[in-house]
Parts: sequence; C-alpha cells; structure tokens
Amino acid sequence: MAAWARAVRGLLLDVSGVLYDSGGDGGVPIAGSVEAVRRIKASGLKLRFCTNETQATREKFVKKLQGMGFDISVDEVTAPAPAACHILKERSLRPHLLVHNDLIPEFAEIDKANPNCVVIGDAAENFTYANLNEAFRVLIGMEKPVLISLGRGRYYKETDGLKLDVGAYMKALEYACDVQAEVVGKPAKMFFESALAEMGVPPQQAIMIGDDIVNDVGGAQRCGMRALQVRTGKYRPCDENHPHVKPDAYVNNLAEAVDVILQQL
Amino acid sequence: MAAWARAVRGLLLDVSGVLYDSGGDGGVPIAGSVEAVRRIKASGLKLRFCTNETQATREKFVKKLQGMGFDISVDEVTAPAPAACHILKERSLRPHLLVHNDLIPEFAEIDKANPNCVVIGDAAENFTYANLNEAFRVLIGMEKPVLISLGRGRYYKETDGLKLDVGAYMKALEYACDVQAEVVGKPAKMFFESALAEMGVPPQQAIMIGDDIVNDVGGAQRCGMRALQVRTGKYRPCDENHPHVKPDAYVNNLAEAVDVILQQL
Repeated sequence: MAAWARAVRGLLLDVSGVLYDSGGDGGVPIAGSVEAVRRIKASGLKLRFCTNETQATREKFVKKLQGMGFDISVDEVTAPAPAACHILKERSLRPHLLVHNDLIPEFAEIDKANPNCVVIGDAAENFTYANLNEAFRVLIGMEKPVLISLGRGRYYKETDGLKLDVGAYMKALEYACDVQAEVVGKPAKMFFESALAEMGVPPQQAIMIGDDIVNDVGGAQRCGMRALQVRTGKYRPCDENHPHVKPDAYVNNLAEAVDVILQQL
Repeated sequence: MAAWARAVRGLLLDVSGVLYDSGGDGGVPIAGSVEAVRRIKASGLKLRFCTNETQATREKFVKKLQGMGFDISVDEVTAPAPAACHILKERSLRPHLLVHNDLIPEFAEIDKANPNCVVIGDAAENFTYANLNEAFRVLIGMEKPVLISLGRGRYYKETDGLKLDVGAYMKALEYACDVQAEVVGKPAKMFFESALAEMGVPPQQAIMIGDDIVNDVGGAQRCGMRALQVRTGKYRPCDENHPHVKPDAYVNNLAEAVDVILQQL
C-alpha cells in the first residue's frame, strides 16, 4: 500500500462478497469481516456501506447483516432504490416495477398508476418470461421509452452458484426496445458522490473496497477515489488482467485491507 | 415496383408475420396468404421459406402450416437449427441447449455430453431464471466461451401480444460473459446464401419478402437481394423511418406483393 493510504479519512465498503457471501439461506459472513468493520469504526475513520443490493429494503438488508454480527445501521447504507425514488419524484415518473418482491416497500410512496417508465432491479425469481415480456410491452408502448436500472452488474455469487445480475436483463430490454437505460447505483458517478457527501469526505481521502472490478473499483476510481479489490465474492483471477481497470491494490479479503490501511494511519 | 422485379426468378418468404400470425392457439393465416403461396408456385417462380422459427422442428412447423391450408413441405424450408447442427458437427462442439422443448429433436444426433458451447434459441417458456443462470454458468466456466444463437430477433408478435425474441436473451448472456454470439439464421449472410443455393438462384434474381425491417429486409439486401417489407406481423409504422434500412418497396401484405411481382413478369 502506498503513501496515499495515509491521507485516508473515509472508507466505502461494498457489502455482498466483501462482508458476506449471500445465498438462499441468508448468507455467511466472510472470515474476519465482522471484526474488520468493528476495527474501522474504532479507528475513527468514516464509514459508508455502498451497495447495489436491490433484493430487499434497506431495513431488511441491515437486519440480516446485524443477524450475522455486523455493526451496521440503516443510515449508514447507500443503496439504489432510494436514489431511484428521488429521481422518479423529481421527474414525475410513474414506474412499472420489475424488482424483487422484498424491494417493493421502498417504492410505497411512489405513484405507479398508468406507468411512463420501467424500473428494473435484481428481480431474481421475478425474472420470469412473463414478467420480462410485460416490462418489454410497457416500454415498447411508449413514444420514448424510459428504462431505469438499479445497477448494471453482470453477475454475482450466491452460496449455490453464480447468478445473472440486473445488468444482463437490462441489456435484454435495451436491445429489444433500442433504448439506453439510465443506471442508478454503482458504477454511476452520482451514486458514489452521494455516498461521499453523506460521509463528508472528498474523493481523494476515501477508499472504496469491493469485489467487483468494474462496478466497485472502476466506478470509484472514475470519481477520484482509490479502490482496492478483495479476492473474495465474485472476484476471479482473470480480473487481474482486466483491460481497462486496475485497482490501486489487491487484498485477500476485507480483514487484510483493514490491517494494511490501519497500519498506514 | 421497379423494372428490377422483371428479372426475378425466385422468392424467399419469411413465414411468421407474412404467412400467418402465430399464437398459443397455433396461429391464424394472414388474409390472402394461402392463395398467394399457391399463385407463386403456379407462376413457375422458385420459392423458399426462410424462417428463424426455432420453437418447433421443421416437421412440426410445416404440419402446422399445412393445417392452415398452406402448400409447403419440409424440404422447402431453410431454418436455423439444421444450420446450427452443421456447424456443431464441423467444429466438434457439444452444446448445452437453451431452446424450446419442441426444437430438441432437431439436435437428436448431436453429442451433448460435457458441453463446450451454448446454443440459444427462442426458448419461450423455457427462458426461466433458473435456465438462464444455468446457461450462463456453463458459458462462464469455459476458458473461451462459445455462444451460438439461432437468430438475433428483438421481439415478435403472437396473438396474445409482443414477446421478447432470442436476440434479447442472447444480449443478456453476451453482456454477462463478455462474449459475442455467433448468429445462425437471419440476418446472417451465410443463412441467406444457403437458401439461395438451395433454390439455385443468384441474389440479383431473388426477392425476400418479410415483416422484419432488420432481419429480413436488411439481411437480404446485404446479400445483394431486393427486399420488400409487408405491413403485417411485427411491422410497425416507425419502421418506415428506420435510420439504416430501406426496403425496395412496401406492400400491405403478401397477397399484394405477389400481385405486383406477377404483374411484372
């Protein structure tokens, strides 16, 4: 780790694949991560959890992590659904939702009658043939289709294997309707910027730690942050030869990242 | 219709949306199309049905059309599945199939053990979340993923509404695995060329008639054929402002196309 780590005042942590491995059973903490979060908080560094998680409300998501032993609260989490609600209200958009059932409460206060846009999230089991056709018909029926995507991830790892992420289904609808989705969530610059603003730390003094070479590392670096890739979660050895994105450092896991960063302070 | 129509010796007809509108009930002939096929055959013009249909074996597909009154036989049909089998054998590829149940018999003689490629067709109800994840895992597990797609259509119309076509799901897998699919079927040049070879007619003396501005009209024109777009099936008025593709003529339906072509002979 280089001298730049000494200037660090805040950390952004991706959650799935960094804190825990998700799965149908709720997930399993990654060894050392529970303690690593405690050590960050004890160090006085600012901390923000920056997730593209859209399979649950923040409340439910935080409860799950607390159940695994993590010291985390709802107001420490930056997530796509609340960011999308902000945009929907601002632009008077009424969404047709193709999202996970457990995310629907995040949109409780949004008018959904007579939709004039589609919001797609990681709908998981809701990515049925019928639901995809329905979202497609809503879009293709608009004069100028508006597709808002809660992330653009390609895939993620659960305990029972790799799963296609929202980005793949976003591409399917983009192609079918000949539109470009507006992405809310990582790697959108505005999303990282709002997380930094919530911490009150400028990008030069923040480090992003994530398992996704493009959405975590590349996205954060484009905002002027340093970024570490952990070798857990969806990390694959071939990420280290990525043609466009090179992390500022590799670490085996979050615990090692925290070791190295705290040593520099 | 211009003078070029006088040189015509062979016609290529798209099937769904030109001969009939498909649907869960098996489909409904488009008014005048049954008679139009008979008139083409009586005229002495060569005729080839050139379809991206991959929801059934050619046998079953032809039987359905015969049931609607069409004069058509299996050896008059050019379709993607047999073309894909040819490629699979030639390159010793063993496919994991993500196709419609009714298409599986077309691959009966192909070795499917220990797959080293994925073949995707219009799987319709088989486009489940689980099946897409499975195809994705097979691909991402390969050192160099090979994805063969039976067409690249965006969507099509059935009697109960528009449906996402194979191209949309192809794009999802392409994005998730960072690969480019090899497309068999329209608009692949090789596919049109094999249909022309089967008729023994050079492209300059052939006319393609289809409802798909890109896959029928654009694809055929890139092979040196003339192409007409019918205003039936998936045709939409905005096709007439397509930024890249302009048919040699528009006709309201196949019956009108045949009227005009036969008048020129």
